[in-house]
Amino acid sequence: MEAVAPLRMTDSDPEVDRLYEDFAALGLSPLWTQTRNLMPLTPSPSARPHVWRWAEVLPAITRSGALVPVGRGGERRATALANPGLDGRPYATPTLWAALQFLGPLEVAPAHRHSQGAFRFVLEGEGVWTVVDGDPVAMRRGDLLLTPGMAWHEHQNVAPDPMVWLDGLDVPLVQQIDGGFFEPGPDELTDRSTPTFSRSERLWAHPGLRPIAMTSDPRNSPLVAYRWADSDAALTAQLELEAEGYPGVIEAGHAGIKMVNPTTGRDALTTMRTELHRLRAGTKTATRRDVGSSVWQVFDGEGTFTLEGSEITVGRGDLVVVPSWCALAVSAATTLDLFSFNDAPLFEALNLARTLVTEPGSATALISTMDARRAEEENR
Amino acid sequence: MEAVAPLRMTDSDPEVDRLYEDFAALGLSPLWTQTRNLMPLTPSPSARPHVWRWAEVLPAITRSGALVPVGRGGERRATALANPGLDGRPYATPTLWAALQFLGPLEVAPAHRHSQGAFRFVLEGEGVWTVVDGDPVAMRRGDLLLTPGMAWHEHQNVAPDPMVWLDGLDVPLVQQIDGGFFEPGPDELTDRSTPTFSRSERLWAHPGLRPIAMTSDPRNSPLVAYRWADSDAALTAQLELEAEGYPGVIEAGHAGIKMVNPTTGRDALTTMRTELHRLRAGTKTATRRDVGSSVWQVFDGEGTFTLEGSEITVGRGDLVVVPSWCALAVSAATTLDLFSFNDAPLFEALNLARTLVTEPGSATALISTMDARRAEEENR
Amino acid sequence: MEAVAPLRMTDSDPEVDRLYEDFAALGLSPLWTQTRNLMPLTPSPSARPHVWRWAEVLPAITRSGALVPVGRGGERRATALANPGLDGRPYATPTLWAALQFLGPLEVAPAHRHSQGAFRFVLEGEGVWTVVDGDPVAMRRGDLLLTPGMAWHEHQNVAPDPMVWLDGLDVPLVQQIDGGFFEPGPDELTDRSTPTFSRSERLWAHPGLRPIAMTSDPRNSPLVAYRWADSDAALTAQLELEAEGYPGVIEAGHAGIKMVNPTTGRDALTTMRTELHRLRAGTKTATRRDVGSSVWQVFDGEGTFTLEGSEITVGRGDLVVVPSWCALAVSAATTLDLFSFNDAPLFEALNLARTLVTEPGSATALISTMDARRAEEENR
Amino acid sequence: MEAVAPLRMTDSDPEVDRLYEDFAALGLSPLWTQTRNLMPLTPSPSARPHVWRWAEVLPAITRSGALVPVGRGGERRATALANPGLDGRPYATPTLWAALQFLGPLEVAPAHRHSQGAFRFVLEGEGVWTVVDGDPVAMRRGDLLLTPGMAWHEHQNVAPDPMVWLDGLDVPLVQQIDGGFFEPGPDELTDRSTPTFSRSERLWAHPGLRPIAMTSDPRNSPLVAYRWADSDAALTAQLELEAEGYPGVIEAGHAGIKMVNPTTGRDALTTMRTELHRLRAGTKTATRRDVGSSVWQVFDGEGTFTLEGSEITVGRGDLVVVPSWCALAVSAATTLDLFSFNDAPLFEALNLARTLVTEPGSATALISTMDARRAEEENR
Repeated sequence: MEAVAPLRMTDSDPEVDRLYEDFAALGLSPLWTQTRNLMPLTPSPSARPHVWRWAEVLPAITRSGALVPVGRGGERRATALANPGLDGRPYATPTLWAALQFLGPLEVAPAHRHSQGAFRFVLEGEGVWTVVDGDPVAMRRGDLLLTPGMAWHEHQNVAPDPMVWLDGLDVPLVQQIDGGFFEPGPDELTDRSTPTFSRSERLWAHPGLRPIAMTSDPRNSPLVAYRWADSDAALTAQLELEAEGYPGVIEAGHAGIKMVNPTTGRDALTTMRTELHRLRAGTKTATRRDVGSSVWQVFDGEGTFTLEGSEITVGRGDLVVVPSWCALAVSAATTLDLFSFNDAPLFEALNLARTLVTEPGSATALISTMDARRAEEENR
Repeated sequence: MEAVAPLRMTDSDPEVDRLYEDFAALGLSPLWTQTRNLMPLTPSPSARPHVWRWAEVLPAITRSGALVPVGRGGERRATALANPGLDGRPYATPTLWAALQFLGPLEVAPAHRHSQGAFRFVLEGEGVWTVVDGDPVAMRRGDLLLTPGMAWHEHQNVAPDPMVWLDGLDVPLVQQIDGGFFEPGPDELTDRSTPTFSRSERLWAHPGLRPIAMTSDPRNSPLVAYRWADSDAALTAQLELEAEGYPGVIEAGHAGIKMVNPTTGRDALTTMRTELHRLRAGTKTATRRDVGSSVWQVFDGEGTFTLEGSEITVGRGDLVVVPSWCALAVSAATTLDLFSFNDAPLFEALNLARTLVTEPGSATALISTMDARRAEEENR
Repeated sequence: MEAVAPLRMTDSDPEVDRLYEDFAALGLSPLWTQTRNLMPLTPSPSARPHVWRWAEVLPAITRSGALVPVGRGGERRATALANPGLDGRPYATPTLWAALQFLGPLEVAPAHRHSQGAFRFVLEGEGVWTVVDGDPVAMRRGDLLLTPGMAWHEHQNVAPDPMVWLDGLDVPLVQQIDGGFFEPGPDELTDRSTPTFSRSERLWAHPGLRPIAMTSDPRNSPLVAYRWADSDAALTAQLELEAEGYPGVIEAGHAGIKMVNPTTGRDALTTMRTELHRLRAGTKTATRRDVGSSVWQVFDGEGTFTLEGSEITVGRGDLVVVPSWCALAVSAATTLDLFSFNDAPLFEALNLARTLVTEPGSATALISTMDARRAEEENR
Repeated sequence: MEAVAPLRMTDSDPEVDRLYEDFAALGLSPLWTQTRNLMPLTPSPSARPHVWRWAEVLPAITRSGALVPVGRGGERRATALANPGLDGRPYATPTLWAALQFLGPLEVAPAHRHSQGAFRFVLEGEGVWTVVDGDPVAMRRGDLLLTPGMAWHEHQNVAPDPMVWLDGLDVPLVQQIDGGFFEPGPDELTDRSTPTFSRSERLWAHPGLRPIAMTSDPRNSPLVAYRWADSDAALTAQLELEAEGYPGVIEAGHAGIKMVNPTTGRDALTTMRTELHRLRAGTKTATRRDVGSSVWQVFDGEGTFTLEGSEITVGRGDLVVVPSWCALAVSAATTLDLFSFNDAPLFEALNLARTLVTEPGSATALISTMDARRAEEENR
């Protein structure tokens, strides 16, 4: 956000001008004229905090259902949030893609797979099965469904109504680092069955129980569906435990869970973290800054996001993007359920994670996960 | 490299045009018109394979010594390789920064620290000590010196001659993901001593021996200097073992080492891998494609880099950039010593690493480190 | 099992006799006279395969309820399986303790904690709550309840009937290696509430969901109850998936799960693995030898354990001990549900695990988890 | 050490006597009569602190050279320390075997391999090469040489003098848990060459440098020789750094290193930790109790071991055994170099490690590595 003019160390020296011309001709570029741009004092994102209103975007998405076919080439009828700070690129943040996908009654989206990791989160509707590596997975309100990197996936809508859901991917990150592969699959759906539970869930969705035969620890979760009934129960329990005087909530009135790979306890996907939060009516969270960006969708209820001091009132379905190091606080007018995803696994893997929390009406505390730093300081 | 025209599913429908206008007004962007650009079949980098000639760049760098001061604001007299495919930005690749830093006789560069991880590799010269978290570290030909993320560092040249070295940083990656913090330190050098060995080496550079008192496992290496004498001995031993019929080399005639954190055996830095390679005269490596990019500098000898079929003859000091998934083979006219750094730790952390090796005159084999995929397939 | 006579290298030399006397006086002992005893060709346990009949042991255990008080000093009214090969010591195997604990109507067992890890498995009955670190945990048929090392625990029976359950501990191992600490707690029960679900379950028993606030990865599972309803569903699903043609079972007709720490995906306890198995009626498992010992209890059904070729018919409640490297096959006359615990985590931690599987009517395959060995061979 | 009488809850009841008889007949054993023996308040080892004098044991060992052949069956001319508390079994502690091995001029010990991990530490002499998985490794004063579990090994003495060294193994632990396999190899030596450096060292003994081709992380170290020159340099550096005011030593005047696997930074062997310590003349360490046992050998110098308050003066070659939880302090009359090995990796793997340190003239602090416990307490 901070605007910094490029430095010129010496303004009018023709020899310096000649040097810079020669640098350019040689494919060289000096640091000293752009140090502050390249290495800002704190993260200085181009992406902006922004809100997309469900009431505004849903009609436009719905129109695409009538006007645009689904099929090979375009692959998916998905429409992405384009952050206003990112020059029209279809990126919610520099690392995260967030799109609304529309599948009409009885429509099918053909199989493909790609390096980019993906999940789907369902705000409303049902009737779609996503087939992940041949395993049909029902999609219903509140469910989170995974399609990890290089997993084959295809969709079918068996219902008489269209369905719209949120797709989250790491497309911007993978594009930026030139890491993506893509393969189209067969045009015909591989499995048209519509089981209540996927095979993935039947094997893996038993708390604390692991099939003895499944001995490997895949990097992405082998459990590909996280059901609302479970999530709701977990959030409810945290708030009840708080009321009884026991730990579990993130802070007063604020419950939260994240989806994990049951074989490791780590994030379900290697590139993105997914979370559900519940705030009691009247709760106001601490203000926090995190290195890394996030996308939030209101699952239910009403409240306010305060982003760098600006308040935005939000309701069901609204989508909010929070850039890196942007100050964020949330307050709940009613019970407020929020879905969120972010790129924290990337920063933690690189030892770059950092969080600054300001409790309401109190001091500021740096909670850094750059633990190694402390250790290194000790060790020297 | 591949140029793909944006898809238009329906060319002349005014309703579609209106939809796209409304999308733009709402901050939305359709996937289906740009699927192939966003998700190419294989990595499709903008960065290009390129070579910078030592004989051409060194004189320009040297001129900067006379014309540009070192000091607060510009911070370092470092001049970066600007990849011709990256629109003039000072990036060797989308993730890697590679710059030549010049420090004149008796000059000092002031203390700072930043999230971005850094190392220095010395092609020639000596007389500079870099002070890393208060620990003076000598820099000499063939040495690799670390300044991990958030480590304080400063430089002094105690010699009558200037010194130029290669700086490698993760600046482009950290900038792209909005992850950087920067802090200036005191203007005066904190330690002007010039010991032969840093305290870091005295504690940590004993093979297989760990100080009992140092119980933490810092994410970045506590050993911050990797000396040429050790590297040379390791490379020599691999080729001798090969001659005796024992394993150790990467492939016939091709020795290689990487620098690791002695507390974990993992890469010395969390964001970049650093390597030294030695090819016997006459050796031609297999052709390989790696997801992720790399920068190479010829430390000694002469040879040829073959990049997507184009041959480039290289000699001492020349710098070559290899974009993601670019086919690379190296052949050695003389004994050829190469320094290299790359972003493999990023891809491995995200489960996105992949390598395709073609043995000279033989079949192609995909060596994927996307192992989790196989496991997931098994586990479903 | 193998009996080996101590070697005497030289039988009648008085100088050798004198040497051995001097050795003894100096606290020395020669290897060469006992090499084969100390280092057998394959594991040569003193513990024997053995079965304890539920119909025989339950009446004796029940008599203890009337004759022996529960309270400080004796601590628990628990009666251990004493392996007939282990000289009357109360050890099921050299590493595992297996005892039946009896708690009469309205009785209470006072709080204590100890280094030794423990679990309880319930064959029948209900009405007891075990309070683990202040958290009351209901015990019902089929449930597995943990009391990890150094967790405070106490029991109360609120029912009009006595209850008997299986206790598993690592007492023999911890005693052998001199690793145990014990602390008595208050004599009064700390919490007399009898909730349906423990707080541990309310926080942690949601499949794939992790409380955001709980950031540490405890070595023992924070989930301390694994309920029969979940276990039964997991076993049922594996056999159904098998019938549908999908993976999941250990071998044909043989489903199995193990209990894991949801924060790591590793075994729920650091010293013992706990498992439930279900065999379809008519199934006969492969014969396998594992390094390490195990204890099995028939949860339901009837079948046959074949131990080193000897067949033992078993039914509900019967307890079978399998020493290290003892050949074991199980066949099921009816649907057969088995609970099992073993010391595999110990062997895996030390890189000593090894398994030999003989498929019925086929060849023998060594499935070693001594993977490091292969790697070392490669790396030399 | 503590003697506890078995409890009898009810002394004279004939029904109880009958119950106990029936228990015995059924293979059952009550806990309540032996709780304190099975679960002592603190570790209560049978092993005793003890010293073996080099001046006394060396002559006896030397006599064995003339009287006992080396060869198949007895396998090695090794004589073990038999702890006086362990009933004549050849165990230094319940987990550790410590023996002195004698190899006469030009003698050869034939190849074998076994599950038990082993190392050799050389107090004096030279001329022996141990061939580890076909790789001849020189043995000289101060060197530590590994033969990890299941590594083939054989020895030859090429010198005109006999050589005696310390063998450390995990024989008692592996025997107790029934985990051992043994295989004899060829009777003829596989490699009679006597290189200065083993191939293992040539590949792996370069500080912080890892061969790129060696991608696996073997559980036991691929580096099998840790040379005195390196160890001496590391200890010297720690004391010099202390004198200059920098960290590195364990406590004032007390330097220490441990041998690690360069691919992981963990202990070189999975079952035993090996260490070298150096105390400045006049240094007195804090008193510490560790869960787990250790064996110490004075490599050089003179000093005093204080074991549960009893002082033992020691000099070059003397061997001291420290049982679990035994209070130990060491003071140095001269510069004192000590070799030590212990079973800490076992306790850490099981989450049973615990240390109590009492600084001289100050308070007591529990330094527990049972970190998980704290985490579990937090997480409930």
